[in-house]
Amino acid sequence: MQQKTNPPAADIPMGAEGVPVDETERLIASDKVEGTPVYNLQGESIGSIYNLMIDKRSGQVCYAVMSFGGFLGIGERYHPLPWKMLRYEPRQGGYVVDLTREQLEGAPSYGRDEAPWGDPEYGRSVYGYYRIPFYI
Amino acid sequence: MQQKTNPPAADIPMGAEGVPVDETERLIASDKVEGTPVYNLQGESIGSIYNLMIDKRSGQVCYAVMSFGGFLGIGERYHPLPWKMLRYEPRQGGYVVDLTREQLEGAPSYGRDEAPWGDPEYGRSVYGYYRIPFYI
Repeated sequence: MQQKTNPPAADIPMGAEGVPVDETERLIASDKVEGTPVYNLQGESIGSIYNLMIDKRSGQVCYAVMSFGGFLGIGERYHPLPWKMLRYEPRQGGYVVDLTREQLEGAPSYGRDEAPWGDPEYGRSVYGYYRIPFYI
Repeated sequence: MQQKTNPPAADIPMGAEGVPVDETERLIASDKVEGTPVYNLQGESIGSIYNLMIDKRSGQVCYAVMSFGGFLGIGERYHPLPWKMLRYEPRQGGYVVDLTREQLEGAPSYGRDEAPWGDPEYGRSVYGYYRIPFYI
């Protein structure tokens, strides 16, 4: 391997030219999205991205699942959010969603032992709650 | 939390009804895809899924990036594969792609310090190599 004269910071994967290897202007890596903090418009932390649920056939991200609360997974709640709701804000280093705490409390969510999105109607209800056209 | 009478296996996240919480018939979690082994039609191991590159605007998975070879990341090669090439085979517990070792050797790939897919033309060349219509 060629010796690099300008080593990257340890916590940000960088290419030889100092370009992040897990993101471009257009694309982002799934494992970079996972764990990213989520804030509301007031700058309050409302959770972090737990994982993405992907439509197997089309490869379309159906939801970004935001986790919030709990301790070591116990008591944690999972909020599926339509992908289009996420807007990355570099200054905060996280996603910003236009969602008050009150809206979030009434939003579809589930506990760690539940998997309600196996039901296609659940998907519609999630998109319906956020008034975003269902992805399919 | 309610006491469960039938605890799930430790390594497979299961819901209270014994349903996997990271997959349904239709959807699969990003962090379940990551790390999944990949085989060719001859049953040979050709790598594992490293991560997914997602189009930020549309939420469409552009590539599944397969990693192969190397040790602790050194010398490892990354092969971007169009999502549609992946077919999950439950008996093997991994994805099967119709790709010989020879085809793979000639396929677009990059090292750990490179991020060539920032160039949209690279994306077209990847899809072109596999003779799959470009995703956009």
